[in-house]
Amino acid sequence: MATAADADAMRRAVGLAARGLGSTSPNPVVGCVITDASGAVVGEGFHQKAGGPHAEVHALSAAGDRARGGTAYVTLEPCNHTGRTGPCAQALVRAGIARVVYAVGDPNPQATGGADTLRAAGIEVEQGLLAQEAEAGNAAWLTSVRLGRPYVLWKYAATLDGRIAAEDGTSRWITSPEARADVHRLRAEADAVVVGSGTARTDDPHLAVRGVEGAVQPLRVVVDTEAKAVRPGARVLDDAAPTLVAVAEDADTAHLADTDVVRLPRAATGLDIPALLAALHGRGVRSVLLEGGPALAGAFVAAGAVDKVVGYLAPVLLGAGPAALTGAGITTIADALRLELTETVRIGPDLRISATPKER
Amino acid sequence: MATAADADAMRRAVGLAARGLGSTSPNPVVGCVITDASGAVVGEGFHQKAGGPHAEVHALSAAGDRARGGTAYVTLEPCNHTGRTGPCAQALVRAGIARVVYAVGDPNPQATGGADTLRAAGIEVEQGLLAQEAEAGNAAWLTSVRLGRPYVLWKYAATLDGRIAAEDGTSRWITSPEARADVHRLRAEADAVVVGSGTARTDDPHLAVRGVEGAVQPLRVVVDTEAKAVRPGARVLDDAAPTLVAVAEDADTAHLADTDVVRLPRAATGLDIPALLAALHGRGVRSVLLEGGPALAGAFVAAGAVDKVVGYLAPVLLGAGPAALTGAGITTIADALRLELTETVRIGPDLRISATPKER
Repeated sequence: MATAADADAMRRAVGLAARGLGSTSPNPVVGCVITDASGAVVGEGFHQKAGGPHAEVHALSAAGDRARGGTAYVTLEPCNHTGRTGPCAQALVRAGIARVVYAVGDPNPQATGGADTLRAAGIEVEQGLLAQEAEAGNAAWLTSVRLGRPYVLWKYAATLDGRIAAEDGTSRWITSPEARADVHRLRAEADAVVVGSGTARTDDPHLAVRGVEGAVQPLRVVVDTEAKAVRPGARVLDDAAPTLVAVAEDADTAHLADTDVVRLPRAATGLDIPALLAALHGRGVRSVLLEGGPALAGAFVAAGAVDKVVGYLAPVLLGAGPAALTGAGITTIADALRLELTETVRIGPDLRISATPKER
Repeated sequence: MATAADADAMRRAVGLAARGLGSTSPNPVVGCVITDASGAVVGEGFHQKAGGPHAEVHALSAAGDRARGGTAYVTLEPCNHTGRTGPCAQALVRAGIARVVYAVGDPNPQATGGADTLRAAGIEVEQGLLAQEAEAGNAAWLTSVRLGRPYVLWKYAATLDGRIAAEDGTSRWITSPEARADVHRLRAEADAVVVGSGTARTDDPHLAVRGVEGAVQPLRVVVDTEAKAVRPGARVLDDAAPTLVAVAEDADTAHLADTDVVRLPRAATGLDIPALLAALHGRGVRSVLLEGGPALAGAFVAAGAVDKVVGYLAPVLLGAGPAALTGAGITTIADALRLELTETVRIGPDLRISATPKER
């Protein structure tokens, strides 16, 4: 039976796991807390980057001999396979851990079986404590394992009447500096940031992370079907972060000779979104921050490839100008994409709304 | 000096005042709490309807002799004039009240001077306690006195991407039953509910209040410039509430012979909004709930005649369909109407956002 102390330790582990967001792909984020036989915390750790030690190894290393007879709280089932690092289940056994409490089972067929290994070694094993919190913290990775494509978070910034720019195209700035800084945090948590050709042409965006300490730069991806929006000298092509330009198979990319280009099949309009996501998945991308514009977001919605929506709503009215979302293939109210609000937070003078699609 | 007990009593008075919202026009809402010499509450009251007793009179009547030597807490400066009821300042003097604490001064030139009368009678008078709360509760009336036109609350219901209907015009329902019930509360608090000809034609709305106990029905107003949207048999013409159809001076209204019609000057598009508001003010309307559609709301925004915005945002995406606001005369971001968020509340699965224009 899980006690309040167990829940406290697991909550701490979930918090530790979140510190790895944006730097562990293709691995999940994982946090681990170890208590000694008396229940005192003697070690903590989180998975910091792929190829580096797992959370359990960090925590065991901090605990040393005090781990013997103690409990390990882990947000994900300890792995059972020898990848670039040894299997964590064996490490826990060697350290003399008496009890392992983990939140979420490992859905990865290569890594699963850790719990069985632990039990076979005589360790008491419990699953499910704070599973919901731990799953939410690992939503991107769990979604990517389940669907075989990256998790997609669509972010937009709009007025209360749903405009992302004024009639004349001006949009600097609809949202506040606080909201724009918050977007950099979202970028830092993502493996890739994706925009369409319209945004590339209109805004010449940089798309790298600024102002987030220790951030791993995401892959910057421009969906430039005709290969006409990203020109040499574009800000997105600087060396602040890696960049990938996705174009149609028949596009002329002579001007992008020094750029990483991926050729993809066309869809009715633009590129085939599942093919784009498959290409990104193949490059180790497990989470995508989709930053627009409205037509690309519409293509993702039409493809059923939006897993979370984060809207920055500024208390501003325009009454004209482009809408946040177009071309999603929805013509009647019965076909609307219904979401569930998961969070609303003030960010400076603006409002950040998070929502996830309802199961369909 | 105001004590915590003073603040408690005034907060109670502000709450009492709110119970009159929607039924006191052209008067303000007012609440009053009376404590005896020992500080115990001995009387409460609020202004219930124009022509009826003022809040102070209700509270004094409840207190009886126990008011002598006590304190009266009033949300608005006690009136000094003899309207349909006697001046409250004199009533407080006669009752032997020793101290009057009021939140907001009376800006009405006919009624002001109550504080002077009280002081002249030797009563201790203090102004300003919880003035902000009391002003917020009386925003409609104070705005109407200051501007000489009704206070206008624009309400809309939209998807996260700012649509009020799908591409094919279907809109039942974007928001939840809870949100739609909440709109009836807004109607009950308003003196008039206003819609445009597009809404009248598309939705054949009823516009009366349902499901709010003790509600006074608002005046239903349709802005039907060409007098072509409201036809005999329209739901808005039933006898559930009074109805006014606003038309252009040259409109043919032969089919509206049994209906209250007001003829107003035309503007570049539609009717002249200040003239409409003046006509409503002349009929005792001090607060208007503007329910749309987008073009009429745009005309109000363009006229600088929106005092508060309440948006019901449903966690729904459409990607096509009419926007919540059009034709507001704003073409560039520098001219955007900037608001301040005052409240965000979950209403069932939806979000209600309230905002007021920043001082310009």
